[in-house]
This record gives sequence, structure tokens and C-alpha cells, in this order.
Amino acid sequence: VSGTPIGLIAGGGSLPLEAAVAARGAGREVFIAALRGSADEGAFAGFACESFGLGQLGGLLKAMRARAIREVALIGHVVRPGISDLKPDLGLLRHLPALKAAFERGDDGLLRGILDILDQEGLSARSVLDLAPALTAVTPGPIGRHRADEAAARQIALAQAALEALDALDVGQAAVAVGGRPVAIEGPEGTDEMLLRVAVMRERRRLRNGGGVLVKRPKRGQDLRVDLPTIGPSTVTRAREAGLQGIAVTAGVTLIAQKAETIRLADEAGLFIEALP
Amino acid sequence: VSGTPIGLIAGGGSLPLEAAVAARGAGREVFIAALRGSADEGAFAGFACESFGLGQLGGLLKAMRARAIREVALIGHVVRPGISDLKPDLGLLRHLPALKAAFERGDDGLLRGILDILDQEGLSARSVLDLAPALTAVTPGPIGRHRADEAAARQIALAQAALEALDALDVGQAAVAVGGRPVAIEGPEGTDEMLLRVAVMRERRRLRNGGGVLVKRPKRGQDLRVDLPTIGPSTVTRAREAGLQGIAVTAGVTLIAQKAETIRLADEAGLFIEALP
Repeated sequence: VSGTPIGLIAGGGSLPLEAAVAARGAGREVFIAALRGSADEGAFAGFACESFGLGQLGGLLKAMRARAIREVALIGHVVRPGISDLKPDLGLLRHLPALKAAFERGDDGLLRGILDILDQEGLSARSVLDLAPALTAVTPGPIGRHRADEAAARQIALAQAALEALDALDVGQAAVAVGGRPVAIEGPEGTDEMLLRVAVMRERRRLRNGGGVLVKRPKRGQDLRVDLPTIGPSTVTRAREAGLQGIAVTAGVTLIAQKAETIRLADEAGLFIEALP
Repeated sequence: VSGTPIGLIAGGGSLPLEAAVAARGAGREVFIAALRGSADEGAFAGFACESFGLGQLGGLLKAMRARAIREVALIGHVVRPGISDLKPDLGLLRHLPALKAAFERGDDGLLRGILDILDQEGLSARSVLDLAPALTAVTPGPIGRHRADEAAARQIALAQAALEALDALDVGQAAVAVGGRPVAIEGPEGTDEMLLRVAVMRERRRLRNGGGVLVKRPKRGQDLRVDLPTIGPSTVTRAREAGLQGIAVTAGVTLIAQKAETIRLADEAGLFIEALP
């Protein structure tokens, strides 16, 4: 709500600053808790900002309360320590058993667990999608100049089918289909590494066909407060290097870092970016 | 059948020679058609052997007929040319439209198409599994000294679940699960590259847990005459480098190249190799 302060827990990449600017533009007072080891702490000039380790929950809560902040959002890439590297302060310590249990439950467990603890401490954790909807493709359809043709639409459906088939198994948010076949499914290596792999397959003539698409979308049942699927300029560059025709994302959910630059690069490279319903 | 001649169409790796030795041991007369660009043509000393390009079907048929061969089997890794690089001889030329259609249908289409043409020409294409069953794990259970424990069995089930979920989409024959999650699914890059990727994830601390397993099995509905799932010494070495606990294969179907050496390496590294029913 305009006027009420928001605490942004910032990881790496350009999105935290973009979210901060968007929130300020919407009339909110912004405080940034930059996560040490993840955030570029120098990026937030002009904003109130302090640094915290991921385990310093007590310190973070104190800083938020001092500013009468009741809402927080987590944004940006977080380098996740092992639970034994967390170095919990006193504020986190009493929640550690719950956090450990959450951590065991999956890849996003640690971040989700921290947000749940903030929630218990009276700080409501929001999705950055509520805070800065302009960071996504708001409506379905093409973003930028190029469109997916029918052949590309078939590859999109195939990559989606692969991701849906794996939805129950917590595998990944992205897949590439080329020539009527999913050829790469993202794991913990991340989207950029997966696209690099497709470029190598192409170089080694392991792919029969040209073209192909990248699909990036949330996992089924994804917690929209953490780890949203994200594309950005490097995704476009890697997709071009992998010889793909374009990228399909989920409207309203997949974040687009440096949107204008991402679209410009895609337009220039002849790649479509299509937002799916 | 003992006494009747067999034509082995040989690709790369050690398996073609192993199959030739096994077939001769079973009392069959063996003729080897070494595929140029794929087979190690010097490997077959002591066997009748000629070299053919994949497109020289007429020449291959003539050589087989001159030896009264009625059965053939394809074994070993085949470097697949694009259909435009096939350089068909006259014997293949009249089958080219059928082969092109088969090629369009998928990754194995070219090889399956060639076997179908041989079949039409009166040469029955057999699976190497019939010819040399000892090249697989014949019965379910552990091969070698180590066994999958309960935790490993759970990872095996997860990797299998991922492969089964993707069965309809013609993705791959292998997957790795670590820490309750499939972390790598094989595409056209092949099993060794996939294991290398897991080793890199581990090095970059992208995997929460130690251990994990590789599962390698045929795709559903796989044509057992071509492209059988295969493991060998390099699979064990890469699995060890990826920090895995072991390898699960399908009894009676997954080929094991240099079986004794593969088992020795696994025993030495503390890895299990488990044949699944």
C-alpha cells in the first residue's frame, strides 16, 4: 500500500534494485536488507540499506522493527549456504529446529523457512510479484518484435510437457526442446549452464534440427515468495548462442530482469519472447 | 543357431569385438561389417571383416549374401550422419524415401530404418541380446561386491520415476538422483557428459547431499535391435568422479562393456552396480 514501508531482502542480480525503484515509484518507503555474499551491496545508493548474513535473522528483525516495517519481500539470486554455514545469531537460534526441518524438505526449504520465521515474528512475507508487477510479462502474448510461429509453438508445448511430467519430482523450472524432442531439462546447474550445454550439442552435431525453444516457468505449487523463474539479458544471449528461436515464459510469474535491455537483445537477435497464459 | 553364420554390423567401442567373440564361442561363423567413421576397423583381427559407410547398403548386402548370411545384428556406438551426408549407393537409393521418413520420426530412426530395409532384403535383424546375452547383467541383483542400501534404493526409485515420467517424450536413457531429487536427466549429450555435469554441480556446491545414483535403462518401447543402454568402465569412473554411490541398470537389457573390468573398477571404488528386474 502506498506510503507503508517495505523491507526488501536483496540477493544478487539487477532485480533487487529494479524492485526497489518500482516500490518507491509506487509511493512506498523502501528499506533494503542486502544479503551478504549474494547482493551487490554497492548497488543501492540512494536507498536505506544494511547488510546481513542469511543467519542474522535477529539483526534483520531488529532493523525492520526500528523502521516500523510490517511487510517484506525477498528478491534476487541467493547463494544458499549449507545449514551448518548459516552462523545463526540469537534471533535465529530458537527457530533453528524448524529451519532445519524445512531445509530437509527441498531446495527452496531454507529460504521458505526463513520467510516463515519472519512471518511468525510479525513480518508478512510478500511475493515481489505483488510489489512490482511490471518486473514480469503482465499479459500473455509476444513481448518484443518477434512471434513464435507454429513450429515453435509445437516445441514450446513439448518442453512444457516435459516440465509438467516432472512437476511432482522437484526437478527444475526450465527445459529446451529442439526438433520435436526435449533435449535439455534444467537441474541445479541452472538455466545458463543448460543453454550452454545445448550450444555444445549443436556444435557437436548431436541435434538433428535447427531452431528450438527455451521454456521457463514456475514449478507446480511453487511458493511465489521465493525463487521465481527469471530470465534476463544473459538468457537471451545464451539462447541465441544455443541457436534457439525464442523463449517462452509464464505471464505474471516469470521475472524479466532488465526488461528493456532483454527485449532489445531479443529483437536484435531475431528471438521471440512469448508470455504464455 | 550354432553353425549358421551371423553378420555383425559394428559401430564403435569394445562391444562389437566382445559380441563377435561371444558369437564365435557359441559356434557361429562371424562376418563383421565395420561401419566406417564409427568402428575401430583394426580391432577385428582374426575375424572376416570389411568396411562400409552407413549409406553403402548395396555393398553390405552383397557381402552378406556372398557369405550366405541371413541374420545380422547391429552393435556398438554409431556416429550418425545427417541424411544428406549418407552418400547412398545404388542398393540404398531405392529405399531412400522410406529411410527419410524413418529419420524424421526420431533419433533412432536412421538406424532402425536401415535395419528395416535389411529385413526387407531378406536379412533378419536380431538384437545383440539374443546373440550374446552374457554382455548384459543376466539376472536381477547386485553385480560385483557392493550393494545398494535403502537410501540408495530410494534414489534409484526417484531417478526411475523421472525417466518413466518422460517416457512418452523420447528424452533419454539415464538419470541421476541425489538427495531425494533427480538432478540430471540425460539428453543427446550422453551419459558421460551428464555425469561430468553432476561432478561440476558437486564441486560448485549446488548439491545439498552426498551420494546419489545413476540409473540407465531402455526407453519404453525401445527397439532392442538398436541403441541399447550401455555402461562400461568410463561410466564407473565418471560416476565415481560425480560422487555417486552406485549404478542401477536393467537386467537382461542394459549392455555392460568390458564387464570384468567394469566390475573391478566399481568394486575398487566402492560403487554398487545393481541390476533391476
